[in-house]
Amino acid sequence: MYTKNVYQQSNQALQRISHEDFIQLKKNPIIIILNNIRSAHNVGAIFRLGDAFIVQKIYLCGITAHPPHKGIQKTALGAEAVVDWDYQENILSVIDTLSKEYEIIAIEQTNQSQALEYYTFCKKKKYAFIFGHEVTGIQPAILQQCNAYISITQKGTKHSLNVSTCAGIVLWQAFKNFL
Amino acid sequence: MYTKNVYQQSNQALQRISHEDFIQLKKNPIIIILNNIRSAHNVGAIFRLGDAFIVQKIYLCGITAHPPHKGIQKTALGAEAVVDWDYQENILSVIDTLSKEYEIIAIEQTNQSQALEYYTFCKKKKYAFIFGHEVTGIQPAILQQCNAYISITQKGTKHSLNVSTCAGIVLWQAFKNFL
Repeated sequence: MYTKNVYQQSNQALQRISHEDFIQLKKNPIIIILNNIRSAHNVGAIFRLGDAFIVQKIYLCGITAHPPHKGIQKTALGAEAVVDWDYQENILSVIDTLSKEYEIIAIEQTNQSQALEYYTFCKKKKYAFIFGHEVTGIQPAILQQCNAYISITQKGTKHSLNVSTCAGIVLWQAFKNFL
Repeated sequence: MYTKNVYQQSNQALQRISHEDFIQLKKNPIIIILNNIRSAHNVGAIFRLGDAFIVQKIYLCGITAHPPHKGIQKTALGAEAVVDWDYQENILSVIDTLSKEYEIIAIEQTNQSQALEYYTFCKKKKYAFIFGHEVTGIQPAILQQCNAYISITQKGTKHSLNVSTCAGIVLWQAFKNFL
């Protein structure tokens, strides 16, 4: 019987880097800001994205859980020990600090949002993406402080994705730009 | 004080379609096959993706939970009642049926995988994407039956994303092609 020579790659073949190498590595100019994320499992999944796409930092704001936390640990699988993070209760002061250097982009369905498929990322710019509460999204006072608004085009009955799924899509689109 | 005229869009402005309209709608030629997915929460999140990106059908195989199921309901938020689905214990018979019409693509890190950023989707083709077990991935016997292999480029210490995050990224990339 003919069989294709296809098999899962070993960890060695995947060229996973060590924790030490990650720390030394030049990060992509991407910051993730999580504001009032209710589910620690979502936070953990986003830490794994931060590791995979070599982001600079994750800010955890408002009610968002922060390490050490069992729920984060369960889904981050160690990525929370690798990716740089900080807890800041007040997101507005985080935005204020970052806005000198970063495009502050709210991931939200607003009247001013650009569709992700048409948004052009620039290799020379730095990006901070805000993801908000699973149900209520990003509040008006925060939207006011952003430079741009991106939404993921959706055609169905819900127009609502899980926040870590949504973060995966947006961060992938940004990360590709720096490959 | 100057304020930007930015606000979250109402459900009406989002143009969400009704359940009835979804059923009538021409679907994108995308099928999702979930094989041995351990977490019903991941299944639910993927149902939301299926709704958002108007996929044809979701096949749930092996140990993957299927509706009605509390875990799916919690994260699908009703999408499981909208998107067409079927439970088939044996994924190989699903692949066998679909392979006459669909490109069968395993989302897996294999020795033959193409990086997602280089994979060209074709408007004239139909795609069935397989996502496997959260830890052990897609088994060799299944890989043998696929036409192509795609992996998401990752640069960090883990090379492992949550399966619903991973599905979001791949389905987004395919969905964009049909916009």
